[in-house]
Amino acid sequence: MSERKTPPVEPVSGTIMPRYAGPSTYCRLPELRDVPYCDVAILGIPFDSGTSYRPGARFGPQAIRQASRHLRYNFHPAYSTEPYRAFQVADAGDVPCNPFSIDEAIEQIESAASNLLEDIETLVSIGGDHTIAVPLLRAMHRRHGPVALVHFDAHLDTWDTYFGAPYTHGTPFRRAAEEGLFDDQHSMHVGIRGPLYSSEDLQQDEELGFKVIHCDELNEMGPDHVARRIRERVGDVPLYLSIDIDVLDPAHAPGTGTPEIAGLSSRELVNILRGLKGLKIVGADMVEVAPAYDHAEITALAAATIVFELINLILCGRR
Amino acid sequence: MSERKTPPVEPVSGTIMPRYAGPSTYCRLPELRDVPYCDVAILGIPFDSGTSYRPGARFGPQAIRQASRHLRYNFHPAYSTEPYRAFQVADAGDVPCNPFSIDEAIEQIESAASNLLEDIETLVSIGGDHTIAVPLLRAMHRRHGPVALVHFDAHLDTWDTYFGAPYTHGTPFRRAAEEGLFDDQHSMHVGIRGPLYSSEDLQQDEELGFKVIHCDELNEMGPDHVARRIRERVGDVPLYLSIDIDVLDPAHAPGTGTPEIAGLSSRELVNILRGLKGLKIVGADMVEVAPAYDHAEITALAAATIVFELINLILCGRR
Amino acid sequence: MSERKTPPVEPVSGTIMPRYAGPSTYCRLPELRDVPYCDVAILGIPFDSGTSYRPGARFGPQAIRQASRHLRYNFHPAYSTEPYRAFQVADAGDVPCNPFSIDEAIEQIESAASNLLEDIETLVSIGGDHTIAVPLLRAMHRRHGPVALVHFDAHLDTWDTYFGAPYTHGTPFRRAAEEGLFDDQHSMHVGIRGPLYSSEDLQQDEELGFKVIHCDELNEMGPDHVARRIRERVGDVPLYLSIDIDVLDPAHAPGTGTPEIAGLSSRELVNILRGLKGLKIVGADMVEVAPAYDHAEITALAAATIVFELINLILCGRR
Amino acid sequence: MSERKTPPVEPVSGTIMPRYAGPSTYCRLPELRDVPYCDVAILGIPFDSGTSYRPGARFGPQAIRQASRHLRYNFHPAYSTEPYRAFQVADAGDVPCNPFSIDEAIEQIESAASNLLEDIETLVSIGGDHTIAVPLLRAMHRRHGPVALVHFDAHLDTWDTYFGAPYTHGTPFRRAAEEGLFDDQHSMHVGIRGPLYSSEDLQQDEELGFKVIHCDELNEMGPDHVARRIRERVGDVPLYLSIDIDVLDPAHAPGTGTPEIAGLSSRELVNILRGLKGLKIVGADMVEVAPAYDHAEITALAAATIVFELINLILCGRR
Amino acid sequence: MSERKTPPVEPVSGTIMPRYAGPSTYCRLPELRDVPYCDVAILGIPFDSGTSYRPGARFGPQAIRQASRHLRYNFHPAYSTEPYRAFQVADAGDVPCNPFSIDEAIEQIESAASNLLEDIETLVSIGGDHTIAVPLLRAMHRRHGPVALVHFDAHLDTWDTYFGAPYTHGTPFRRAAEEGLFDDQHSMHVGIRGPLYSSEDLQQDEELGFKVIHCDELNEMGPDHVARRIRERVGDVPLYLSIDIDVLDPAHAPGTGTPEIAGLSSRELVNILRGLKGLKIVGADMVEVAPAYDHAEITALAAATIVFELINLILCGRR
Amino acid sequence: MSERKTPPVEPVSGTIMPRYAGPSTYCRLPELRDVPYCDVAILGIPFDSGTSYRPGARFGPQAIRQASRHLRYNFHPAYSTEPYRAFQVADAGDVPCNPFSIDEAIEQIESAASNLLEDIETLVSIGGDHTIAVPLLRAMHRRHGPVALVHFDAHLDTWDTYFGAPYTHGTPFRRAAEEGLFDDQHSMHVGIRGPLYSSEDLQQDEELGFKVIHCDELNEMGPDHVARRIRERVGDVPLYLSIDIDVLDPAHAPGTGTPEIAGLSSRELVNILRGLKGLKIVGADMVEVAPAYDHAEITALAAATIVFELINLILCGRR
Repeated sequence: MSERKTPPVEPVSGTIMPRYAGPSTYCRLPELRDVPYCDVAILGIPFDSGTSYRPGARFGPQAIRQASRHLRYNFHPAYSTEPYRAFQVADAGDVPCNPFSIDEAIEQIESAASNLLEDIETLVSIGGDHTIAVPLLRAMHRRHGPVALVHFDAHLDTWDTYFGAPYTHGTPFRRAAEEGLFDDQHSMHVGIRGPLYSSEDLQQDEELGFKVIHCDELNEMGPDHVARRIRERVGDVPLYLSIDIDVLDPAHAPGTGTPEIAGLSSRELVNILRGLKGLKIVGADMVEVAPAYDHAEITALAAATIVFELINLILCGRR
Repeated sequence: MSERKTPPVEPVSGTIMPRYAGPSTYCRLPELRDVPYCDVAILGIPFDSGTSYRPGARFGPQAIRQASRHLRYNFHPAYSTEPYRAFQVADAGDVPCNPFSIDEAIEQIESAASNLLEDIETLVSIGGDHTIAVPLLRAMHRRHGPVALVHFDAHLDTWDTYFGAPYTHGTPFRRAAEEGLFDDQHSMHVGIRGPLYSSEDLQQDEELGFKVIHCDELNEMGPDHVARRIRERVGDVPLYLSIDIDVLDPAHAPGTGTPEIAGLSSRELVNILRGLKGLKIVGADMVEVAPAYDHAEITALAAATIVFELINLILCGRR
Repeated sequence: MSERKTPPVEPVSGTIMPRYAGPSTYCRLPELRDVPYCDVAILGIPFDSGTSYRPGARFGPQAIRQASRHLRYNFHPAYSTEPYRAFQVADAGDVPCNPFSIDEAIEQIESAASNLLEDIETLVSIGGDHTIAVPLLRAMHRRHGPVALVHFDAHLDTWDTYFGAPYTHGTPFRRAAEEGLFDDQHSMHVGIRGPLYSSEDLQQDEELGFKVIHCDELNEMGPDHVARRIRERVGDVPLYLSIDIDVLDPAHAPGTGTPEIAGLSSRELVNILRGLKGLKIVGADMVEVAPAYDHAEITALAAATIVFELINLILCGRR
Repeated sequence: MSERKTPPVEPVSGTIMPRYAGPSTYCRLPELRDVPYCDVAILGIPFDSGTSYRPGARFGPQAIRQASRHLRYNFHPAYSTEPYRAFQVADAGDVPCNPFSIDEAIEQIESAASNLLEDIETLVSIGGDHTIAVPLLRAMHRRHGPVALVHFDAHLDTWDTYFGAPYTHGTPFRRAAEEGLFDDQHSMHVGIRGPLYSSEDLQQDEELGFKVIHCDELNEMGPDHVARRIRERVGDVPLYLSIDIDVLDPAHAPGTGTPEIAGLSSRELVNILRGLKGLKIVGADMVEVAPAYDHAEITALAAATIVFELINLILCGRR
Repeated sequence: MSERKTPPVEPVSGTIMPRYAGPSTYCRLPELRDVPYCDVAILGIPFDSGTSYRPGARFGPQAIRQASRHLRYNFHPAYSTEPYRAFQVADAGDVPCNPFSIDEAIEQIESAASNLLEDIETLVSIGGDHTIAVPLLRAMHRRHGPVALVHFDAHLDTWDTYFGAPYTHGTPFRRAAEEGLFDDQHSMHVGIRGPLYSSEDLQQDEELGFKVIHCDELNEMGPDHVARRIRERVGDVPLYLSIDIDVLDPAHAPGTGTPEIAGLSSRELVNILRGLKGLKIVGADMVEVAPAYDHAEITALAAATIVFELINLILCGRR
Repeated sequence: MSERKTPPVEPVSGTIMPRYAGPSTYCRLPELRDVPYCDVAILGIPFDSGTSYRPGARFGPQAIRQASRHLRYNFHPAYSTEPYRAFQVADAGDVPCNPFSIDEAIEQIESAASNLLEDIETLVSIGGDHTIAVPLLRAMHRRHGPVALVHFDAHLDTWDTYFGAPYTHGTPFRRAAEEGLFDDQHSMHVGIRGPLYSSEDLQQDEELGFKVIHCDELNEMGPDHVARRIRERVGDVPLYLSIDIDVLDPAHAPGTGTPEIAGLSSRELVNILRGLKGLKIVGADMVEVAPAYDHAEITALAAATIVFELINLILCGRR
């Protein structure tokens, strides 16, 4: 990547090419190959072979990009940002993932992410099922050391194995804990709810270093309070945000593999995220969008919008 | 039913048979014929000939069972329960209901429920349209005497007749009142909203003995307060819970026959239910799931999850 | 229109003709040609050629009418009204709009609305995309002078032009401001959210005379507070309400052209509206229902129910 | 009905009011009350309480009317007809049918049809489930005596009873045979296929006087040959055509209650019908459209188009 | 399995329990555990980890069983059979397949099928993706020796590897050929169409011993001729039929993972199958039904009906 | 464009990047900017403002590209071609079309197409509604002179004006005839069916120089015969093929704006096209895919596959 002598290449303008047309990159941003430097790369990870229930998240990256056409992105009033003019965001395309070998796919993802992180500080991945968090955290760790991990999800994703498999979409954060990929003094789950596989799930999760904000606590706390608790937990440690779209209620995100009722509304999630302004986000993933179960693109649109919130948060964390 | 010499037969384990496969019973529980004793029976009532608008709830029982595959059921942290290890729950299959004769179907349901209640204390029915509440309350009354009736619904369901028919999904609780099937000092509707057929609807309803918590009151009260009011109303009278899925907002439950906007979120409903811990529930029904109008199973999943909440509540009420 | 010597013609009764059958007018009300006088006309405006993203609102009027069959309309407890007995509401059918000429369509709409307003005081239009607000406000202005304009929407709709076109669904309120069609001391937007095309959007909007209640403010204010602020802004000026269905969250209104997550729930919107009781509403539009993206009619049902709320509000404003 | 002194009232023109707007009558034809005389009435029969599997045909009449908006109807080249200029066709609205009493509904249908047939020679009914054929044939018999009955369907619909009920959508033609409503020397089924409830079904059907053209025979015969065999069977007896949309393959008509694969394509059915030119059709029904299972209106469009073919056939049979 | 002293246990009768209710086994047949002997077992194989494009066939077995409720099965006029009275058919439930290990799943399937084939002569499997044909053919070979293999599919499924994986849904018949699991003098593909990965695909396929009837040949040959060619190829060798639902056109079977236009109609396929009467079928699979892409159950219904045709064919081959 | 010194750049290989991932160009072909020369350009035209009924074809180009991921494209056995190795095909992206001005959009399309045709001999456009045929034929005429026009469609598209508009999706071929853009001695419509707006439609169409093969003629002729008649009509004149997806039956192509039943199957259309081998095709368009009405991508897949057939035909016509 060459020197930063030019302003960022912005997305194709919606006043020239209608938003429903033109490039299929996220927000119609330039492809990575078309920019001389890059601050944030959007990386598609079309992989769902770690799914335990409804598969289809392999189509997630394309669906999120397609839904991102909806976004008016020039100026975000909640952050007072013009992100695509402030720094260079680009679409790095998809990682080729072997659908028939979880192990090989994990290597491919780790390798692709590590390569990108040599030149680019921040990576936002669009999945794909939650299995992909392991190789992403590995690559992140190589670049940034142990990160604070804040994980939005209906589920803990810290089981040990599933059908004997150590790497599935229900186990990434136990693997990550075992490998020391995140800083267990500054990490937490947000949005957890519903019944569990075992009464020991919560206890074991705590032993891995996680704090939990249960979804029901939202009833009393409100988004601002939740954000404050996250900020307190994270402190000034570099932060990795892992967001499973099923943290949203199925009414807001039907298009996912393991929906769980009684979840967050999209407004709650967006407002929690906005409360994280100032945290130094160095990476994020947005996973588990399964378009075959979506309708009217509402799940993909939620994911695409959340990714845009993340881009603004990343920008704010750098200033 | 024989003696209780063995621990309960649990559902098929999701670590052996993936949740999307295996038996089609509710939560993949044993069939009633496969257990030596039973504490709670899940009874399908595939009947929708009492429907005034969109039919299709005849497919509700199958849809709820199919959606119950999603559930991780071993441990419920909100109740600290392991219900399927604590007592025997089993699937009693479907009642054969004549689709062409409301009268005969009512007899079939009453007879089937009464037979079950000879051996089994608690019945949770999955419908089916709301017409089925009448024969269920009759069977319940035979076993338990007049019960407290708490009814979650967008509608009162206490009209007199509809097109001259005394038994429809809009009239069950007037019939039940006339027959003295519930204790009118301890009964109430929750979630009522929307315009009415007549200005007298509310007054007549009150004369039948019902109190009402209107959906709009949720704005100020919050789920905990609502639960407290229900607990106060019910006291220690044995409780029958009748839940029409349309108490939920159409965003959370599109798959129903007479949706009404401005309803409860699934999180509100679940939290109200959790606030009922300690009440002695002796029966319940979950009605009006019409799968042809559902998408991505979100309505059926809501119903299946609520049934699981009920099972945990029943267990708590027994301890 | 002749003298008011007879009581209003009411809708076809749901106790004679099942609600799913009979006339396809809004709420199965009489057609305008069938009533001797009329207080409120429901006017369909099947036009979507001003749409910038997902088209299809041309099918909105039919969808809203079809969904209005769901409504039980005799008595509205929130207002203690029996609107269809209190004054004459009738369906004025559809305006023939040229789909290939925005200019001609605008003329057709203005002409049709003006003609109706010669005899009828209040018009509730069902769209159609938001372009139609301009000709409607012109007709309204001719009859009532500058009205207070309260606009519920995710978007400001005060851009200047779009692809060089002055009249699109993103520009109506700038045109209306330029023409002085509303009273800029008493007008506001409610529900605005999401990123913008430009950092100047909000400033320019303010220069046109609008106040804004952003959607996020709902988190703290609650519907009652929002309603109070609207009432304060409007005062006793005759009010025109323009409601874009996308003010609702996509979970509640997927069937629209430019959905934006993190929106209002239908319960919030309904409760804000109820808080406007007493304002003198002289006109309203309900726009941007795009049925091809709806499912289970939930968007159209929301629109139909909101229109019914409006009818009750209009009645209350007259008493 | 008054004298025929004026040309027929034609449908609303698609060059003035776009086809997706305007009246919701079949083909946007005038309502019956708006014409001084009428040759063919289109009658909606929103009834599905005789359905044995997937209900929802109660919404069929509205769906067929809505889909009829698609039709360009001025000139039909296959018949060289301009039907709406040649004779008066009008929409007679819906029969109010009691959804809770099959018996009462049958009386309502018979009464409504008989009343219409006092003034109007030909009735085309849009259903509704197949139960409605019995009261329609009664009314037809009263006016025209025993008619030839040609029945397009995947199923024979000549069972005796179903769940003890004599009147269901599986039994109408046995009832009609018992009552002598059709001429058993000139009647037949077309399109029958699939397995049967009993090996005696075909034999008993034959005893009722029916000949059968099985769907598989289409493979060799082709539409023209089938049409010839029908014409030979019917001769010059006044003909009643009863068309169950499930005679079409589910690929062409998914929106129905009891689909059966390996059926007719819409082109085959349309071409068979065109081969019936010259037969004197005095009545017809188009039943079993269940919109909740349709998509993109393809089933309702097939039904609406077939009804238009029938109107042209009726016209040809009169000349 | 005990002696055959009793007549077969038949499915639950549709005259007692409506077809939309009751057990969820295929055709509501008894479970295998409930019959003293069994001639044909229906085995669900919920596995789709070998899918190269749209996943979801793991939900195929449940969907096919659910759709089989539609079937009237007592008597099949095309074969003059009453299969469920003539021999014992039972539902053997689902094989527990590891979704995270193709190798382990293949072992599980082979083991389950082999165990069944010790007691039961004929197995009809419902998938699941086409990967499952390998273990099924292994089990079949162990019982019956090399079978004639007739394979209905849009695709050859004889690639070597895919992403390095030897066992995927695109490679089963090359593996089967390498292992000598079928008799290459009597095997063929039917329905092949569309472009190929390589010009050598057809040549390599021929070297494995397959003959091919391309889908386009249907235009001239007709189903009877195709059936004759299959019969000639198979002769009197025991036959295994492997049917990928994508042999049907997407109009008839949208719910599948790799649809290919220009395919067979369901009537063509059914008629080809009926032409195979007399062949000795010892096993079959019906694969690649992916319900998330289905609508109105038309794909699952096609699959369920084809399985019923197979059962009748098996019966005919035994007589 | 530079010299042809290198072999064509092929699509991204499906053995490296799974087909459901990677670039969103048609068939994952290179973008035009990435190739040194180009033989056939695929051009997206996201425009639907000329639509008279269901809009949404503006999303057609993206949907066709997305569905083209399904295609295995290396070798086409019907033509014995390896097109992407034989000549350079590339995706030229989308034309920016003004959605609010038909006139400006037509200029934009004509200009974009003309620019491409300066360097590239053959253009295949993916629409978009049929309005776009006029500017495409203008550009084609400029490069190739009057072309033979073969038009596959359910409708003639030779009306004069629609709502006063000369350029709509119902009028392109009258405009083209008036401008002499095609050779009226060698042009024809194929697949025409259904009723017409006027009895003069066919006569006026003939006066413009068209021959017609009606859809019903397919019943007797078969695809080969139709292809022969087209070849005879076209002769050796350079050919432009304009294909409206609604030439297919709605069962095969539900996702379109003006569906018409009784149409072609996809197999018939594909086989007609294959019969055109040898004709010199210099341009083509594939229009009227409206994804909002599609399901399981079957319409978009049909369009994508037909475009691939066209690419092979173009190659054959050059050899």
